[in-house]
This record gives sequence, structure tokens and C-alpha cells, in this order.
Amino acid sequence: MRPINVALIGYKFMGKAHSHAFKDVNFFFDLELQPVRKVICGRNPEPLKKAAQKWGWEEYSTSWKEVVERDDIEIVDICTSNNMHRDIAIAAAENKKHILCEKPLAMNVGEAKEMVQAVEEAGVKHMIGFNYRRVPAVVLAKKLIEEGRLGTIYHFRAAYLQDWIVDPDFPLIWKLRKEVAGSGPHGDLNAHLIDLAHYLVGDIKSVMCMTTNFIKYRKLPAEERELSTMLTAKSGEGMGEVTVEDAAFLLAEFENGILGSFEATRFASGRKNYNYFEIYGSKGSIIFNLERLNELQFYSREDTPETQGFRTILVTEEVHPYISAWWPPGHIIGYEHTFVHEIADFLECIAKDTLPIPNFYDGLKCQAVLDAALLSAEKGERVLVKDLLK
Amino acid sequence: MRPINVALIGYKFMGKAHSHAFKDVNFFFDLELQPVRKVICGRNPEPLKKAAQKWGWEEYSTSWKEVVERDDIEIVDICTSNNMHRDIAIAAAENKKHILCEKPLAMNVGEAKEMVQAVEEAGVKHMIGFNYRRVPAVVLAKKLIEEGRLGTIYHFRAAYLQDWIVDPDFPLIWKLRKEVAGSGPHGDLNAHLIDLAHYLVGDIKSVMCMTTNFIKYRKLPAEERELSTMLTAKSGEGMGEVTVEDAAFLLAEFENGILGSFEATRFASGRKNYNYFEIYGSKGSIIFNLERLNELQFYSREDTPETQGFRTILVTEEVHPYISAWWPPGHIIGYEHTFVHEIADFLECIAKDTLPIPNFYDGLKCQAVLDAALLSAEKGERVLVKDLLK
Amino acid sequence: MRPINVALIGYKFMGKAHSHAFKDVNFFFDLELQPVRKVICGRNPEPLKKAAQKWGWEEYSTSWKEVVERDDIEIVDICTSNNMHRDIAIAAAENKKHILCEKPLAMNVGEAKEMVQAVEEAGVKHMIGFNYRRVPAVVLAKKLIEEGRLGTIYHFRAAYLQDWIVDPDFPLIWKLRKEVAGSGPHGDLNAHLIDLAHYLVGDIKSVMCMTTNFIKYRKLPAEERELSTMLTAKSGEGMGEVTVEDAAFLLAEFENGILGSFEATRFASGRKNYNYFEIYGSKGSIIFNLERLNELQFYSREDTPETQGFRTILVTEEVHPYISAWWPPGHIIGYEHTFVHEIADFLECIAKDTLPIPNFYDGLKCQAVLDAALLSAEKGERVLVKDLLK
Amino acid sequence: MRPINVALIGYKFMGKAHSHAFKDVNFFFDLELQPVRKVICGRNPEPLKKAAQKWGWEEYSTSWKEVVERDDIEIVDICTSNNMHRDIAIAAAENKKHILCEKPLAMNVGEAKEMVQAVEEAGVKHMIGFNYRRVPAVVLAKKLIEEGRLGTIYHFRAAYLQDWIVDPDFPLIWKLRKEVAGSGPHGDLNAHLIDLAHYLVGDIKSVMCMTTNFIKYRKLPAEERELSTMLTAKSGEGMGEVTVEDAAFLLAEFENGILGSFEATRFASGRKNYNYFEIYGSKGSIIFNLERLNELQFYSREDTPETQGFRTILVTEEVHPYISAWWPPGHIIGYEHTFVHEIADFLECIAKDTLPIPNFYDGLKCQAVLDAALLSAEKGERVLVKDLLK
Repeated sequence: MRPINVALIGYKFMGKAHSHAFKDVNFFFDLELQPVRKVICGRNPEPLKKAAQKWGWEEYSTSWKEVVERDDIEIVDICTSNNMHRDIAIAAAENKKHILCEKPLAMNVGEAKEMVQAVEEAGVKHMIGFNYRRVPAVVLAKKLIEEGRLGTIYHFRAAYLQDWIVDPDFPLIWKLRKEVAGSGPHGDLNAHLIDLAHYLVGDIKSVMCMTTNFIKYRKLPAEERELSTMLTAKSGEGMGEVTVEDAAFLLAEFENGILGSFEATRFASGRKNYNYFEIYGSKGSIIFNLERLNELQFYSREDTPETQGFRTILVTEEVHPYISAWWPPGHIIGYEHTFVHEIADFLECIAKDTLPIPNFYDGLKCQAVLDAALLSAEKGERVLVKDLLK
Repeated sequence: MRPINVALIGYKFMGKAHSHAFKDVNFFFDLELQPVRKVICGRNPEPLKKAAQKWGWEEYSTSWKEVVERDDIEIVDICTSNNMHRDIAIAAAENKKHILCEKPLAMNVGEAKEMVQAVEEAGVKHMIGFNYRRVPAVVLAKKLIEEGRLGTIYHFRAAYLQDWIVDPDFPLIWKLRKEVAGSGPHGDLNAHLIDLAHYLVGDIKSVMCMTTNFIKYRKLPAEERELSTMLTAKSGEGMGEVTVEDAAFLLAEFENGILGSFEATRFASGRKNYNYFEIYGSKGSIIFNLERLNELQFYSREDTPETQGFRTILVTEEVHPYISAWWPPGHIIGYEHTFVHEIADFLECIAKDTLPIPNFYDGLKCQAVLDAALLSAEKGERVLVKDLLK
Repeated sequence: MRPINVALIGYKFMGKAHSHAFKDVNFFFDLELQPVRKVICGRNPEPLKKAAQKWGWEEYSTSWKEVVERDDIEIVDICTSNNMHRDIAIAAAENKKHILCEKPLAMNVGEAKEMVQAVEEAGVKHMIGFNYRRVPAVVLAKKLIEEGRLGTIYHFRAAYLQDWIVDPDFPLIWKLRKEVAGSGPHGDLNAHLIDLAHYLVGDIKSVMCMTTNFIKYRKLPAEERELSTMLTAKSGEGMGEVTVEDAAFLLAEFENGILGSFEATRFASGRKNYNYFEIYGSKGSIIFNLERLNELQFYSREDTPETQGFRTILVTEEVHPYISAWWPPGHIIGYEHTFVHEIADFLECIAKDTLPIPNFYDGLKCQAVLDAALLSAEKGERVLVKDLLK
Repeated sequence: MRPINVALIGYKFMGKAHSHAFKDVNFFFDLELQPVRKVICGRNPEPLKKAAQKWGWEEYSTSWKEVVERDDIEIVDICTSNNMHRDIAIAAAENKKHILCEKPLAMNVGEAKEMVQAVEEAGVKHMIGFNYRRVPAVVLAKKLIEEGRLGTIYHFRAAYLQDWIVDPDFPLIWKLRKEVAGSGPHGDLNAHLIDLAHYLVGDIKSVMCMTTNFIKYRKLPAEERELSTMLTAKSGEGMGEVTVEDAAFLLAEFENGILGSFEATRFASGRKNYNYFEIYGSKGSIIFNLERLNELQFYSREDTPETQGFRTILVTEEVHPYISAWWPPGHIIGYEHTFVHEIADFLECIAKDTLPIPNFYDGLKCQAVLDAALLSAEKGERVLVKDLLK
């Protein structure tokens, strides 16, 4: 195994998930490359230092700009808030680093195009962190579709439902601010669903969208009272405006005639990380729910008529994607395993000199649908996705 | 019990369901009225005669016009294809009959308004056959919402999925012809969902809709080859055009701020009669699926934090709506029971001289949303429901 | 259709279910015979009269002995408490009536043998009311097993769980008294499971059993205070002893090598009518739950390896047993439908002069297993079923 | 953090799971100790060396005897086949090592007693690897029971079902040989269930058991043809006898009056790692299934009557046991996480100088029930557990 040095920018939720994946990937997978957790970057030195120690990074740095210029770094992994993606990715590309960037790729199509151009010019490997493409059950779904076991596909119905801001006392964190996050559950959750649709069934032609806000003002987070200048505190002392949508529902017509829907919200009490989709075809159907990510439901019209039904496949058999690296049948895996798969595949692409999938092109395509949807919501009209890519 | 004579128009699926309900209603419920299955009407004397005998109707007639004029008839029950609803209902009203009419109320808002006017002028009781309002689990949902156990409601997500025309060899029956059915799954299935939304959470303000067709030409049904003049046989001998949509998906903004969706299709392989909705509120959530109509899922944020989860209530307890008439806990009821409840309530309203719910006003309101959605699909724009009611 | 006169003995829960089935059977099924609800029998004239009126019986009588001697009666249907089965059945047989008897057949094997002898000598048709053999999903299970789709069967795991006496204030009704009921959930619930095992997978060779009581004394029911002489009121005024078991669990070795279990209790909080079984074979498996009686779960090792999983068959298709008489796919049926099927089949057997299944022989075989289990619990030993049939 | 050196004996399935846990434990948990993967032991140097490299062990050794005597080793972790547990544990104890031993503790009660005596005399920490006590949902179940939310418990119904030897061509591996494994699914799977019962609801008083074999002879594994001397090759060339049971079902009476059942088999087609239990109490009930280990079902009779139902708690909230170390709500964990929890707790006990739970006393108690059950199966009688502990 050849060691390869990694710089990770960001040390929150995604930073932890990626750190763990880099740590575990060689334990489970036989790879040509062995990632070295070289340096982790962030703005706050204290928690950053702790993260570095706990997660096994050799160094930490508060300057991502210096880090992406270091000669010893081969991979830059971007786990920051969305408004930082473009600058870091472009700098990393200019320094010839391979890049793994969390989703959504950018704040908008314009940024995404710049990023695509940068990696193209640099000739580096680039990947976008749509990790749910690496759920074994999702890969199995892809395989069944490619084998024709669903026949012609008629519908893709997807929802990504959470409830972590239903409480009106939940504070105004960065994910609720347009300047930092770009959008709300749309970019956070619909992005995943749209990418899964692209992966599984095809490209989207046009969309109609409605968005809404249920709670318009929230209290500022304790640690960010000093940031109040960036907020319009309309509704009282220590309060700020939620500038992203709370929910975004969209209908989609696909290029191949599929009629689909995508619904993302953070106001679905009882749903925690309910990334759910149903695919209906002329020969069969598929259902997936991330909260039960070890399972795939499959219905086949090719079964004998009296035994047709949705079967719950426990996707933990050796014949299933990625599973042979893990445990015997019935011993389920968890959320973080998708990142191990992602990193394993990313490293293999670098080793084999092939382009990872999904990459920045996929990120751009997803961004175009996201932007088209928001435009549709604004104008109250059906919007063609290609008009965003002109 | 006072006997009350009923005339039933139509002897297919709904004719059977209603006939059975009239037969069984006094077995299970204590009512002031006892319906007498007096006369059943239809066009084809042979099958009509058989239906009359098997289902216990005293007479049969091929002239609904004569029947609705008979003095001995007090109730006219309309179970015909949709294009007949208006004429029969208006004639029945003019003859001072109480009317139960299957859904959707009419072919369009214009017809629905005429029907409303007719029953208003006649002063008769009128009811529309949105039977799913009489599923015990749905009534329980209503009760929980009214008690405030869901708090402020944020989302109503509904789907009505079937698969009975996925097979391209399925023939061009009346439900696939606009002249007879008015629309496809939109009027057939979305109508139910929209009525449930009206019943459970409130009125709809505006909609965005997409519809589509997957199979445009189908073979004529064997028994209807002579009808070929009414069809545009474009794609070959014995074939006819499907003139209603195969699927209709819509987004909805409610008057009270709810963001919702309604998705109806007959192309969802594996879904048979999947009338499904989710309601998310600030304090709790509810899930219902007609294929498991004895169950209601309920999530409460008021449970202790570590025990919150969707509970599956088996709605078969004596404390549950309608159940005391039936069996002990855990002994489930079926689809046809909703009609027994509907007829029981209808008879009680006649006996007590009160207006049944849902009635023609509800039917009209539903029709306006249906029409608004089709208009939205056609224009590619958001449409205000109130514009249809002007 | 030829009319055939029926006398029903008993007017409680089973009386209602059977009455309804006699009422509805010709509405749904095409039969040679048309049952006439001639006379209903019971001890209490007031409620009996009401039942007769509501359920459509022409007459009522407080003397079953007179009724079973009437020349105009062809069918005697026994829905009384268990301690009456033998006498009524023997009298009915002597009067050459066809007999439908509720389960369990008798209070013990001795009585069951007498009943078998009586019907054999009389040459009448006899059936036992194991109605769950008439659940479409159960008949489908039987068909799959007979087609070899489960291969060699290894396990039959069954449970019948209820919770209606968990409340210590629930009174001492007849089902809790050995003199009237014979046994508790063992005869009430395990009887069903054992019969299903006999029907689906084969005969039982030996058993080991444990039984227990959780609440030994209960208050007398209000209407039965005068019965206190038949009770041993040990624990205070108005209290009586529970003389049947509260739960009975047994292990079973089948003649064909299957290892099975049967567990019945009335102390399973949350389980209402949870009649559940799993059958595991070399080629596939089956799961059934009466609370979702329209569904059957089926696992097949003959599916492609990566798509194996328990499929939930919605047993509402025309190809499924009994369903063509009812509604379109996805329109579920309920508990009482099993009785309609039972009566339909019973009438057909009378019309065709064939022996109904299950009949008194099946009732006797079930009784032997029940008795063997209680003997095992008493002695703390494995008991051979055949020893009970000597 | 203080480093603490570990020796791991065994490098198969459990060796991998434990290795990973030692690797990951400090990434997620804040502990006083940091385990150092010092040396891994096994018999076959080639695969052992690979395992050492892949799993990050500094050294490997083919002599566990030498290793347990090394001064630099503080923890001995026993992941061998069952027949080695006693000798290694006693040697480790004599060398004053803290011991983590996989389950079942021993081949029989006699061995287990010797092991208990050894660790008592040595004064070392000892733990037994009943890792399912560390599933968050199971710990939540324990908490709910301790809080009295189930009231008096009436039933514990458990099953551990697998299907990995249904195929008659599956070879005669060590787990199918009594000399090596002690017993079949009884010691392998029932052991887990019995320990969970001890943990959750109390001690077992007496048992009745049936065991069986479905496939008596199997082909020898390719790599073990040379072992044929230890096998009785009765049924042909290259075949050997299965000397453990294929299934073991038992009934149990608990000291506190609970009536329970335990059913383990490797012949349940479709069940992969189905460790399932139901607990029924006077106030509520609980259901758990390891194949969905992130969920706990809970029924409470204290809910309002019309909303009682089994709720599915997604045990991924910060308030749930162990979860704060992992991911946000709805981001599920997998099978291997139970070992991380186990190792974290084990290390904390060493650091805090307290006895881990479950320990060798728990292992002995479980062994007594296991032996009592096999004795019951052999004698066809109810057996008292205490008789095995004399």
C-alpha cells in the first residue's frame, strides 16, 4: 500500500464522518492506497485541536489556504459550510490536489460551473460527497434497474424528511442562513434525492416547485451573538431571520418521460433522517428508506401472480454490493459505512487514474435542478432545467 | 324502524358495495330507518336482473328517468359513470328525492354548481360518496387533530397509487375515456385525497400540477367494439385513444399555510389500492394507508423523549369510531364496512333532518381543486382554486 | 337455490358472526342452497329476542332440545359455551341434523370421541368452526406448501396472543371457569393454532407444556352474582377463583420431524387478536398474522440470490382463494368474512353430499393434542399424543 | 489517556469484530485508557499474519501460552472456538490478566465453574462477550423496565433464527462439532437470548426443552479433510457426522413467575441474524429484533386508550444510550458498534477498578440454563436450573 496524504477542511459532522472513513477504510477494504490523516483545518483552534487528537490527524491548521498549497498533500477533502466550497475547491485544483467535496457542490449553478472549469483545467480527480450512492441497498437498486428488472420506469417518488427544527426554540444556526448555506432542506436534502434520481433513473427536464417557511425568526445561537451584524434582527433582541426555506416540494418531468416528485422538509415530526424513495416500473418497483438502510423493498411482476408482493431484501449477503468487506448475513451496517465505501472508491479511482463518480459534473447537474426549482417557486411556473445550464 | 325505499342507479362495483351496505346496515347499527332495496337501474337488462336477484332488490328497471319519478322512492343512490351524475342528480332533486351520489360529484365545476343549485332548491338531503371519511382510523385521525394532538399542521402528503393498467394489454374501458370519466386517476383517486385533506386539515388555496400519459392507445374492450364511433382509432384496427391522464401529481398550498402534495397514478406496480397520507404537525404526526385500514400510525412529541416513535394503533377497540357495532378488539374490518358506515350516517341524517357530511358542497369544493390542478398542468402555472369558483 | 332451514344455538359473539354469515353468504357466493335463518336459541328470552330481530331470525326459542327435534330444521349450528357442545351435538345427530360446531369440539378427548361416534352413526354432515382455515392468506399458504414451494418443512412456530384480561379488574366471566370453558387460552387459542398446524404441516407426535396463572382471583360479573354457588370464593366477598390457565406454552415434535411451538396467552399487553405463525422450510418460509389477515409473507430460496426477502403478498387478487367473490385488488376484507367462507363451504358440502373439512375428526385430533399438553404441564414430562387417543 | 496492551486470541469473525472495536473505541468515546493492539494469536501463521497487518496488530504469535505470560500484556481477549475458552482463561487469570471472553463461557457448567474460580482467585477483571447487552435499544428496554413502565412482567418470548446451514451442501465446519463447539445453536444463539433474559427480566427456575437434527451428515470442509480421524464418517467418503443439534426450543419458568420461551435454529429460511424478543408486562410491552437493531417497539397501557399501539422508537437520539458518541438522529449504527460499546465499558471498568457486567458469573448462570435445557431434552422432563449449579 502506498501512503497518500490527506488534508481535511472542516471538523464538524462531516469532518467526523470523513475522518472515521479515512481511519477505517484499510481495515475493511484491500486498497492500493493508504490514506494518511495529515492535517485537519478549521477556524477555531481549540475544538480543532481536540478533533485532531481524537480523530487521529497528525496536525491541525487554521489556514486552509496554506494547507492546500503544501506539497505533501495529495488529497483535499472539503467538509465546510457550503459558502466555502468554491474558493477551496478552486484553490485546491490550482494546486493540483485531488478533491472530495461535500454536497451540495456550490451555492448556485454559477459557482458550480467555475468549480467544474477549475478541476477540468487542473486535470485532478474530483468527487462529490453524495454518499448515499454507496448504500449497498441503493447500489443493488441500481443493479436491478440496469438488469431491466423494473422494465420501463414510470415514477420516481422521493422525500427527505427531518424534524430537527420543529421546536421554535431551536436556534438560528448556519444551516438556516442563506449567506452560508445557500438554501435550506432544498440544498441539504433535495440535493441528495435529485442526485439519487440522476443516478438511478435519468435526467430531469423540467420542474414545478413550492417552498415555504413556518417559523420566520429564531433566537441567535449563544456562541454567535457577535455575528448579529450579519442578521436582520427584526423580531426582537437576540433574534434573527431564517433566510432559507423550511420546506421545498417539487414535481419533476424527466427526459425519459418519468413523472416524479421530491419533497424535503425539516418540519416532519417523527422523521429523523427519512431519505425515502419509491421507483415504479412496468415490470417491478423498488422502495428504499435510509432509516432502514440495510433493506431494499422490491416488487416484481415476474413473480408468479399469486405470490407477487413487496419483498424486504436484507442487503447483508455476500452477494450484495460492498458487503463482503463487512460481516456475515444479518449483521447490519450503519450510516458511517457509506463514507467508508465512498473513500474506498475515491482512493481506487486515484490509484487507477479514473474519474470518480459522482463527480463535479454530477454536482453541477444537481445544482441546475436545485436552482431551477427555486426559480419555479419564485415565478410560479414550470421551469426547464436546461435553461439554467445555458 | 321505519322502512324507506331506495332506488339504486348503477350495478357495477359501486352498485355492489352500496347494495351490500343497504342490506347489512341494520344488522350492525341501531337506526330509525330501515332501507328497502326497492329498485335497481341499469342499461343492460340481463346482468341487471342477475344483480337484482343476487343482491336482493325487489325490482329492476332500465329507465332511471321513470324510477326517479316514482312516488314510492325516497332515496336515489347514484352509482353510475361520472358523466351521468348531473342529469340523474338534478332529476332526483326535482322529484324531491334524497340523494347519495358517488364521487367525483361531476365532470367539472360547472356541472357541480348546477347540482348544488338543484339540491338547494329542492331542499333534499344530499351526500357524496367519499366513503374513506368513514374509515374508523380516519375518523380517529380527525379526532386527534381536533383535540390538538398534532398541534399546528405543516404538511399533508398524500398519494393514491394503483397498478391495474400497467399491463399494455389492459383494454380501453370507460374509466380511460374523458367523455365518460371526466378524468383519469385525478378524478378517481386524487378526488378522495383532496376530500380527505379538506376534511382533516383545511382548504386548498393554490396548486401546481403535472400530468402524463404512458400508454396512449389501447385495444377496445370486446363488448364495446360497436362504440368505436366515439373513439379516435389512430393506432390501428380495434384500438382507441386513452383520453384521460395516466398520472396526476400536484403540489398544494393550503389557506392555513400547510404545504402539501397529492399524487395519483395507475402505474405504480405493486400498489393495489394504496390510499396513503401523512400529516405532520408541531406536536405530532399521523400516517394512514387504506391497504391496512384498521391501523393508524401516530407520533407524539408529547411522549417522553426517549420513547417517541410512530405507534401503530390497531383501530379495533370499542373506544374507536364505529367499532362497537362490529367485533371485539383485533378482529379487523374490511373495505365494504366504510359503505355500511356511510349508509348508516346518511340514514340517520334523513331521520334527524340534518345535512349529511360530506355533501354536494364538499363535492363542489373538491371539484374546484381538481379543475384547478388540470388547468395548472395545462398552463404550466400555479393556479388559485378560488378562480375556479368565481 | 334450494332453501335450507337453520337453527342456531347461542347468540353471543359467535352467534352474531354466524348469523351474519348466513345472511350474507348468497350475496357474494353462487350456491345451490340458500340458508333460511329459522330459529335462534338461548337461555335469556329478552336479549335473545332482540338478537333474533336484529339478525333476521324468524323465530327464537329457549329450548334447544325442542328445536333440534323439529322436522323443519336441517342444520344445527352450535355456538354455545364449550360445556354444551357434546349434548347438543349428540342430540342434533340423533335427529339427523347436519351440524356446524364451534371450537374447541369438546371439553376433553372423551367427549370428543362420543361426538364423533354420534355423527358417524347418524351419517350427517359435521363441521368444526376452525374458521381461520378460511382466511384467503391461509389457504394460499396451504397451496404454496402443497406445491412444494417451501420444500421440506423444519419448523412451525405459532402464537396466539391477546390482552383482554391483563386488567385485574376484569371480571370472572365464563371463559375463566373450567366447568364451562374446559380450559383457558389453551382451548380457546392454542386450539386454533394446533388445527392450523394439522391443516398446514402435519400431525403432532409429542408435546411438552408449561401453563401458569398470573391472577388467581377475580370479582364475579355483576349479572352472575347468583351463580356464586358454583364458585369457590376464597379471596373475599364477591370474588371467585380463576380455574383455567392464563397462559399455555407448548413445544411439539411432529410425526414428520418438524420442531414446533405453540404459545397462547391472554396477558400480552398490546396484542389484541394476534394469531401468528411462521413456517420454515428448506425452500422457503411463510409468515401469517391474523391482525393483518389480508397479507401473507413468503420467502423463497428460489428467487435470485440477491433479491431474496420476505415478500408481503396482499392477498386480495382475483387469483387468490375466495377473493373473486369480493372486491377488486387492494380492497381488503375483514374478520367476519372467514365465517362467510366457512358457511359457503359447509353449504356446498351438504349440497354435494361430501364431508366438510375440518370436521369432527379434526376436532378430536386437536382435542387430543390439547389434552396431551395439559397432561404434560401437570406431570412435567413429554407426552405422546397417541396415548390420549387410545 | 493511558495506553494498555491487548493480546487477542483468535482471528476469525470475532477476532475481526474485536480488533475493530479496539481500533475505533477512542475515536468515539472519551476514555482513560487507550488500548494498544499488541499481539494477535492463532494457529495458522499465514492468515494470522495478514489479519495482523490489516487490523493493525503490532505482532502476531502462534503460541497463546507464551503470549498470556508476557509481562507487557494487560488484557487477554479470547475469541477462539469454545473448547479453548477454559484453558486460555485460566492461564490468563493465573498471569493476572484482565479477561474478555467470548460467549458461551465454556463447554459446560463444570468448565464454567473452574473459570469463575480462576478469575476470583486472581482478582482480575473479567467480562463475557454478550455484546447484545450493548445495543442501545436493548439498554433502553432495560431502562424502561427498571422505571416500571412495563409493570409486572408476564412473558419473555425470544427466538434466535438463522438459515446458514439449510443448504445440505454446507460443510461440516467446527460449529457443527460437539468436541469443538459444545453445542449448536443452543450455545451459539440461545446463550444470547438467555443472557438477555437474565439481564432484562430475571433468573430462570426451570426449563423444558426439545432439540432436533434435520441433516445428520455433511461433507467435510476442504481444508479439514486431514481432520477426518476426529470424525465418525458413517455416511460415505469425505462425510462426517453433525454432532450438535440443529435446533433447540425451550420453555422456561422464571423465579418471578414469568412464563417464557427460547427458540434457536439454523434452519429458518429467510432469517439471517434474527435475534428477536418480546416482553409483555402489566403496563406495557417491548419488542426487539437485532436485524433492525436501531429500533425498539414499545407499547404502553398508560397512553390514552384510543392511541395505544406499538410505537417504533428509532433509538438514535442523543437521549438514548451510547448514541451521543455517534451521529445525529436517524443516522443509524450497525452490528459492530455493539463491540465498540462493550470494549469502551470494559476499559472503563478496568480504569475505575469495578467489575464489568456481564462477567463470568453471568456466563456461569447462562451455562447452567443451557445445560439444564439439554438435560431436559435428553430426559424428556422439566429440569430445575439450580440442580445444575449444585
